[in-house]
This record gives sequence, structure tokens and C-alpha cells, in this order.
Amino acid sequence: QMPRGNLETIHPRALVLSAVRRNLDELRFLEAMTAMRRHRINMNLIYDHNPDKFLTNVQLFVQQINNVSHINLFLTDLQEEDVTCTMYTAAYNRSPVTEDSEQTNKVDTVCDALRKALLQEDENKYILCILTSYVKKSTPELEEALLLVRSLRDNPNKNAVISPADALKYLLFLVDVNEMFDVALGTYDFDLVLMVAEKSQKDPKEYIPFLNSLRRLEGSYQHYTIDKYLKRYSRALQNISKCPDHFDECLTLISDHHLYREALPLFTLGSDKYKEIAKLYGKYLIEKKKPEEAGLVYVKAEEWQLALDAFKSCSNWRQAFCMAAKLKYNRENEVDLGQKLANQLRNNKKYMDAAIVLEEYANDTEEAIVCLIEGCHWEEALRRMYKHTRMDFIETNLKPAMVENYESLLESLETMRVDFDKYRKRLKVVREEKERERLEFQESGGINDADADLFSDASSATGESIQSSKSSSSQSSAYSRSTGRTSRNRRKAEQKKWKLKEGSPYEDFALMAALSKIITAVDIMRDEVRGLVKVMIQFNSDKEASKLQETFGGFLSLIDTSIPSIWMDDSEEGEESVVLGPHATANTIAQAVQRGQNLTTKEKLDPIIKNAPSLHKDIKWKLSMLEGAKS
Amino acid sequence: QMPRGNLETIHPRALVLSAVRRNLDELRFLEAMTAMRRHRINMNLIYDHNPDKFLTNVQLFVQQINNVSHINLFLTDLQEEDVTCTMYTAAYNRSPVTEDSEQTNKVDTVCDALRKALLQEDENKYILCILTSYVKKSTPELEEALLLVRSLRDNPNKNAVISPADALKYLLFLVDVNEMFDVALGTYDFDLVLMVAEKSQKDPKEYIPFLNSLRRLEGSYQHYTIDKYLKRYSRALQNISKCPDHFDECLTLISDHHLYREALPLFTLGSDKYKEIAKLYGKYLIEKKKPEEAGLVYVKAEEWQLALDAFKSCSNWRQAFCMAAKLKYNRENEVDLGQKLANQLRNNKKYMDAAIVLEEYANDTEEAIVCLIEGCHWEEALRRMYKHTRMDFIETNLKPAMVENYESLLESLETMRVDFDKYRKRLKVVREEKERERLEFQESGGINDADADLFSDASSATGESIQSSKSSSSQSSAYSRSTGRTSRNRRKAEQKKWKLKEGSPYEDFALMAALSKIITAVDIMRDEVRGLVKVMIQFNSDKEASKLQETFGGFLSLIDTSIPSIWMDDSEEGEESVVLGPHATANTIAQAVQRGQNLTTKEKLDPIIKNAPSLHKDIKWKLSMLEGAKS
Repeated sequence: QMPRGNLETIHPRALVLSAVRRNLDELRFLEAMTAMRRHRINMNLIYDHNPDKFLTNVQLFVQQINNVSHINLFLTDLQEEDVTCTMYTAAYNRSPVTEDSEQTNKVDTVCDALRKALLQEDENKYILCILTSYVKKSTPELEEALLLVRSLRDNPNKNAVISPADALKYLLFLVDVNEMFDVALGTYDFDLVLMVAEKSQKDPKEYIPFLNSLRRLEGSYQHYTIDKYLKRYSRALQNISKCPDHFDECLTLISDHHLYREALPLFTLGSDKYKEIAKLYGKYLIEKKKPEEAGLVYVKAEEWQLALDAFKSCSNWRQAFCMAAKLKYNRENEVDLGQKLANQLRNNKKYMDAAIVLEEYANDTEEAIVCLIEGCHWEEALRRMYKHTRMDFIETNLKPAMVENYESLLESLETMRVDFDKYRKRLKVVREEKERERLEFQESGGINDADADLFSDASSATGESIQSSKSSSSQSSAYSRSTGRTSRNRRKAEQKKWKLKEGSPYEDFALMAALSKIITAVDIMRDEVRGLVKVMIQFNSDKEASKLQETFGGFLSLIDTSIPSIWMDDSEEGEESVVLGPHATANTIAQAVQRGQNLTTKEKLDPIIKNAPSLHKDIKWKLSMLEGAKS
Repeated sequence: QMPRGNLETIHPRALVLSAVRRNLDELRFLEAMTAMRRHRINMNLIYDHNPDKFLTNVQLFVQQINNVSHINLFLTDLQEEDVTCTMYTAAYNRSPVTEDSEQTNKVDTVCDALRKALLQEDENKYILCILTSYVKKSTPELEEALLLVRSLRDNPNKNAVISPADALKYLLFLVDVNEMFDVALGTYDFDLVLMVAEKSQKDPKEYIPFLNSLRRLEGSYQHYTIDKYLKRYSRALQNISKCPDHFDECLTLISDHHLYREALPLFTLGSDKYKEIAKLYGKYLIEKKKPEEAGLVYVKAEEWQLALDAFKSCSNWRQAFCMAAKLKYNRENEVDLGQKLANQLRNNKKYMDAAIVLEEYANDTEEAIVCLIEGCHWEEALRRMYKHTRMDFIETNLKPAMVENYESLLESLETMRVDFDKYRKRLKVVREEKERERLEFQESGGINDADADLFSDASSATGESIQSSKSSSSQSSAYSRSTGRTSRNRRKAEQKKWKLKEGSPYEDFALMAALSKIITAVDIMRDEVRGLVKVMIQFNSDKEASKLQETFGGFLSLIDTSIPSIWMDDSEEGEESVVLGPHATANTIAQAVQRGQNLTTKEKLDPIIKNAPSLHKDIKWKLSMLEGAKS
């Protein structure tokens, strides 16, 4: 019984296909293939019809077909496409391949399976098919093919149907001769090279001297030279590493092609050569602006001074002092290094680290305390003061810094609060304007005639949706302006386009981005605020501490309550759920969909626009003693 | 001209209203009020009709009405509701108040404005109205009203229309006499109390002795006793703090009502009393499990030992050693404290801090190094080894720990990877099942008749959406199971209900939550992996380092690519955008909406379900030297 329904679209071919399918199902490969060849049906169907069945019965296939050129025809026709889902989809009606299925390569699978069957059947007879199966693979296995030809030549078989020369000829018909020349050269077998070269248009005056010059070189060095000629640098490295006398060339190869990582395991750890390569690698990493990694490699090279410089330049002070110890730095040098590193760390705002360096290496307790105060590490500063009985710093440095920090925190909170309110208000206005424009446009589209029948409503609504993405009203037209570029480019361009200037086309996104920035900035202040509030209480600035905690807490909860309205939390709108109900019409439904659609413009998918910044609510920053009126 | 349109719904009252509105517009308050009283129109309209206009012309209003009981009628009728948006909305058709407008209290505004006008007009005449305006406020100003009555009594006026006694009587008619008695008592004016008491049903045998006992107490202490009786503890505290002889009672009051924060500023900083209160406060904070805050307060109390204990119990070692310094701990005590704190810190996995304590206070360099290695702080451990020339730890401790850390990291990555793949696959299956069930249900609902006319399609689609949220198919029915509870309770209950067990109703959510947990766990490993990889390279375990980096990097990119499919990124679906087009029918649109609606069930709003965890992509963890095949 034919599957019904799509019959009329397939024309007579449907009948042929049906027969072919039946033949394939019943493993009558020969009949199937004959019909397929006659009716020019794509050969892939033999496999695609039922891949597993074909693979288990591949031997039978070979036996039935029993014809070199027909098997070659099948092999050369192979392509990755599954024809049951493309060309012959009408006859199969299969769903396209699920992406999850194992990503094996169809052509490779068939080639390998078929080759195995051919070898088992009759290697001599099917030699050309076997060669085809090598060449056809997604990464052609030319060397394998060539070696097969060589073995034919080396072990002449009396039953041979094809001469080695003919086999080579066939191979060179499938593959460019120059490529084959290189493959032959890559086997380091000069006979093979000559065999290929002879079949080519190459001038013997050219390649003979070249081959002779190679022939003169010894073992690994010869292989290295060939590999280098073929630009197979990894193999070249393997080979040259076996030539102790050519170590200079080895180093050149490593540097020229950045083979440091491959080179190191080829030499004994700790040997001079190993260290020399590591040193080269370090230099390369420094050039690539990876000083920390360079430092680690210099350690392997036991180049302590270079390692120290590398670690110093990336402010890895711990490793730098390890290196200093290796170099047996004296006190003076250590103090000097300590001062330099402490300055660097301080400039990078790593006050805690700078303080350790100052105290433990630069021998400067006072500066360490000053540095900790500068970094607002109040408790650590106090600890050091008490440890070195330098509590005088409390009055001279800590308290003034505390007041300064308090004032600057309050001020920046104030500034951000003003901006936050401003942006929020403006965002509301911009959104209302957009909504108004949208509605106005919608009304002008003729949808406002509530008495029109539903059919015409539905069609006008849908027609309009197409328009709305293309035309009218300044803002909405800007959305589609950049179509055609790649999505990445477009996003980049748009990010630049978002301007806070009033009336700019992406003002709402610019506002959201600005709000997001403020929220993140406030959110990360939790630890700083807590630290400051604690020290302020300790030194009896309770009132100010209270004010700071209140201001900050107020801002945080304002942020918390504002987020849903800024990022349009669905739960806040609750409109969608009303859409479908007994009173819904095609019209209201279409409008609702359109509303939804407005929310999925590409810009809305930008992470800043799509998601509110996540807050670190788990950080406990509040002191309960400063909360509310009562303790 | 009458506004047209809604005329028929207002009945004759519309005419009256129209006249009233005209009168109000033309500031003929008397005519307006007369009509309103006759036709029982809500008095609020006088204000609500045009609030600003009323407030500017309130003096004129008083002059025109010129009648105590009518003004009282207006005052007592006042309510927060805006009658132009409720009762008389038909005549006004105003949009309800925008939430953004300043949240001033209407009743309070009118009371204050009217009182001002009345006082200006004729205080004597309108005394009762003025009293009403005090009582009517959202927080009745009873004390003000009572003081007004007292001033009437104290300064008898010959023109007085109302005797002080009558005024009081009127007041007690408006307010419960017992409440008024307390208010009177709160003025500390015994005459006033007596005046009120006499008008009450109270037994003089009861209140006279009570008042007499109070009368015998001196100044602040008397006031304190009254405040305490009235449960005005803040005022009581203010008053008792002025009685140095009753400090014990003050402390009791503070403890009983936790008034520590209010109490401290009432005493001189650093005085014995201040310290005593701070000490009490510290004790209270300890009880409330706030040891760190208790420590800060004990510092204020200069109770160094108590502060030390408090800081110790919350592992704030920096402050603890400051306190130890204050207490002039000897070496032995310091070592002891150091060991205890180091153990605590180590148990809390604060290895860096523990190492500092061990080295600087417990005098135990070896243990500090061991501790740093335990915490995988490789570079800091190395630094200390070099500093104290104890490089022997590299072989004995660091390298074995490094290998162990490497193995355990790889293992946990492996475990998480297996779970991740399992959950992901299962999630796909569960979702497909759900979708299939939904489609089956939809088909059985009679929507599959594609030839039915659009109107009936639309209605059947909408009807079905109501059903689908209530009935059928195991999973979807579970969604509505918990209706009726509060949203917070429900979410809590559901979180518990999410079970990973196959086939449990919220299995998909449980899977998402589990995936989210794994993602977060992997994401925070960046620093640990980088640290380990660095030390492994340094000690020549390049191969293992490579493997770790590759495994981890592979997992991270798998996570990155999986997130859109787990959290259903809209951009991945791209279906919505096809919904409205020339081929859309009411039917397809309705289905699309329903699809959208399925996505907004309450469970989907749970943060774990709604948003993918945010990754710390900004952390640079990868060493380029271990990347890819080439360096």
C-alpha cells in the first residue's frame, strides 16, 4: 500500500521510489541500484533509507553489486546530506535529524565500513574502490592510499587485476598530483616520491636535485628538513629534537613557530636545553603581555632574576619575594624591592597586600598603618596600631580618614540617588510616550472600529503588525534600521547608539543601562558601609553611623522596589493572563500578542536590558543596633 | 450645557449635582451647601470638586456658611475617599488619582486649613468647630484640643459664646473620656486632669488618691511616673534620666523596654552611667546573638574583657587582639588566645587569617604554613616558606596537598559533569512530555477542525484556555493545586514540592534548580583552578595542569552554551515573531498567546526558574600557556 496524500506531488518517480524502498527493505541491493541508476535516483538513498540495516549488511551489498565501477559510483556520490529529509522527503516524511544524535560523520562511516567489506571480499579486485574510499573521507587519507599503492608495487600479485601503475594513475586522477607529491615526500620514502613525480608534469631537473640534496642528510635531520619543507612543524620539532648537534636550528624552529609548549616535554626536565627553551618561552610570554605566566616559566628555567622581574611587573609580590629569597637578596635589596612593590600595590588599591609588604619586607610599620587607613581597612589598621603600640595614629590618621570616608560615601550615595530618581522618572515618561505613539499609530491603522466583524479585525490587526515593524513613529522605526548586519555587530553599534540625551531613539535603553550601573555601584558598597559603620560606632560617631546606614539602607530598598518596574517584571503587569477569557475577541488577542512582540525586539535581549542586575542580598551589612527607633 | 451621554444613569440627582458644581465653580459655597444638605449629597464634594480652589477660598467658605453646626457637619463628614471618583464618578468621569501624586492626607489638609480660617474669623464663635478639627485629624490632636479648653478656662472671655465647661463637654462627646483622662494626665497638669475626671463617670475615691500620690513626687520623677503609667517609655526615659538619684530605676526602665540606643545619648560619653548602660546593652546584644555589635558596645563601655569575649565568639580576631592589647596580655596569654582563634578560623575555613594569627600571635610558623597549604593558598604558603627558609615543606606538604587538591577537583568536576548531563537530558524529556500532553489535550478540546469558521475557533480557543488551567493531565493540574494560600506560603510549599524523582509534578523545576546549583558551584571554582594550575606548572606537573584547565574550561563552555536551552532564552525560540503574519488566523494567534501564557505560571517567576545564574565571566582564570595545542 502506498502512503496516501502527497502522491500527486511526486509524479511517476513515486512508483520507482516505492519499488526501490521495497527492494532495500528486502536487501535486494542489486535490483535497487539498477533501478536507481536507471531513474537517476540519488545513491545516498541506499544508506539513508535505513543506515543501520545498510551497515550490518554491507558485505551483502558488495557481493550483490559485484562491480567496481558501480561501487565507485556509490562512493563518489556519497554526501553528508540525508536525502530522506531533503530530496525524497515526500516519500519519507521523516522529521529532520535531531541535533542530539551522535555527531558521527556519515561519509566517513560508510567509507570505512565499505572498505572493510571490500578488503574482506577481494582486495585485488576492488583496489580502485578501496583507493576511492580513502580519498573520499572528510579528511582524505592520502598517505594510506599511497602506501597501499606502494605495497602493490612491493608485493606484486599474479592475480592482480590492476597494475600498481594503473592504481597510481587512478589515484592521481582523484587527487592533485602536487598534493600527492607532498604526501609521498611526507612518508620519507624517496622511491614513492619518484613514482609519483614520474606520473606528474614536474620537471625532473627540478625535483631530482632537490631529492638528492635531501638524500644526503642523515636520519632525523633529513626527516626534519622534509617536515619543515612540508610545513609540518610539529613533526619537524620531533625530529630535530633528536639531533643534539642541531640544537640551534631546533631553537630557531621553536621561536619561529612558537612551539615552546610542544618542545619542553621533548627534553629532560632541568637539563640545560630544557632551561634554554623555557627561557625562550618566558621571553615570548613577556612579549605577549603575560608576565605572570612568564614568571612561572622562568622558574622552570631557573632564571630567578628574570622570574622576579616578571612577577614584579604583574604585582605578584608573593612570588617576587620567593625569587628574592632564591637570589639571596640582602636586607637592603629586600627593603628596596619591598618599597617598590608596596607602591605598585597601593596604586592598584591593594592596600592589604601593600601593608604586609611594607611591614614584613620594607620594614616600615608606620607606612603600613597609613596604607591600611588609606584603604579603609579600619580593623586591620587598629590591630597593627595595637600590635606596635602606635595608638597615636587613631587620633592623627584614623579618625580624620574615617570622617572623610563617611562624607565621601554619603556624597556619592546622594549623587547616585539623585540620578537614580531622575532616570527613573524620565524612563517612565519615555515609556509612556512610546506607548502613546504606538496606540496612536494603532488607531490610525483603522482598528478602532469596534463594530467591524471579527474576520476583518483579525486580518487588519495582522497586516498592521507587519507595517509597524517597518514604518512610522521615530522610535519604533529606529528598531529596524540596522537590519542586515550580523547580530554581534548590530548589538555593538546599538550599544554605542544608546544615548541618555532626551529624545534619542534608544533613550529608554540608555536609561536602563544607566540605572543598572547605579544599582551595581550601590550594591557593592555593602561591605564598605558595614566596615565604616562599625568603626564609627566604636569611636562614638553613632549618630553619623546611623545616618549612613539609614541612607544606604533606604537606597537599597528603593532599588529593590524599583527593579520590577524598571525591568518590567511580568508579575507586575498581570495583563497577559486576562487576554484569553470569555470576552476575548480575535482583535484583543492579536493586540495582546503584539504587545508581547514589542517586548521581544532584539534590543530587549541585551543582558543589561533583559535582566536586572543581581543583588548581593546575602551579604549581611546592617548593624541591628542602628536600626529603627528602638534597639 | 449639561455634559451629554451618561445623563440617563444619574436620575434627577444629575440636575442637582450640576447646579452644585456651578455654585462651587462660582464660589457660592452657601448655595452649594444648602442644596447638598437638602438633597443629601456627600459634603466631601465641596473639597473634591476642586481641592485647590477650596483651599485658597477657605476663608470665604467660612464667611459664607457662617454657621457652627454646618461647618461641623462638613468636618465630621470628611473622609479620605475622593467622591468625584467614587460616588459621583458619572458626573465627573475623572480618572482615579494617580499614585504618583504627593501622598498628602486630605482630611488633615482640610482640618488644618479650616482651623486656620476659623481662628482668623472668630475663635470664640467657632470654638466647637476648632475642637472638631483637632479631633477629626487622622492622628487626633487631643492634647491640643484639651489645651485649648484649658486656655478658655484660664482666660475667661466675656464674649464667649460657649463656656469652657460646655466646650469640654463637647470634646468628651467626640472622644472617649478615659482616653481624654490619659491625655490630660500626659500634660502633667493636675487641674486639667481633675477637670476631665469630673466630667467622667470615674469614682473620685479612685482617682483622687492616685493623683495625690503623683502630686507628692518631685519634677522629673513625677513626670517619669506619669509617662510610665501612660506607657510612654521614651518620654519616661527622658524624664528619669534627669533624676540622678533614681539611676537604678532608669536602668530597669532601659532593660525592660530595650531603650539602650535612646538612653546612651542622654548621658555623657565616657561617664560611669554611660558605661553602665553600654554594658547592659552589650549583654542584651549577646543575648540577641549579635556578638560583634556587643563587642563594639563593650568597647564604648570600656569593658575590654567582655569585648574580647564577644569578638572572640564571632571570630573577629583583629578586634580581639586589640582588646588583648588593652588588657595588657602577657606573651603566654597571647599565645593561648592566638591558638584558640586560629583553630576557630581554621574551622571556618579562613586559612589566610588563621595563618596570620598563628605566625604573629601564636608564634607557630610551621603550623601557619601547614594551615595555608590546607587552605590551598599556595603562593602565600611558598612565600612564608622562603621567608622562614623552611623550603622542606614543599616536598613534605605542598606537593602532596597539590596532588590531592588536583585529584579532588577533577573528581568533583567529573561528578558534577555527569549530573549536569543527566539532568539536562532528563529536562528535555520532561519538557517534551509536557508539551505532548498539552498538545494532546488541545487536540481533544476540539480545536483541530481547521475548517471551522474563525469566530467559533476564537471562542473555543479562549474557552479552552480557562479549562486548561484547571483540569486534566497530571503535571499541568498540579500547577493550580495550591491556589488559595498566600503567594509566599505557596512558593515555599512548592519549593519543597520540587522533587528530582522521575515523574514528580515539578520535576522540571527541580531539575532546573539542580542545574542552577551545579552551575554556581562550577562558576565559583575559577580562582581555585587558576591558583592550582599555577602552582602545578611551577612544580612541573604541566600535563595534569593542562588536563585540569581543559576539563574545567570545557565544563564552563558547556554551561555557557546550555544556559539558553535550560532557561528557554526567547532568542532561541524565535516562534513568537512568526505569530502575526499574513497567514495568521485568530486560531494560531490564540494558540501563540496560550503558549506565552504557559510561560508565566507562578512557578516560572521563582528566581531560580526565571533567570539563569549569572556567571563571573570577568574573572580571568585561564593560563594561555595551557591552551590549545600550540602556545
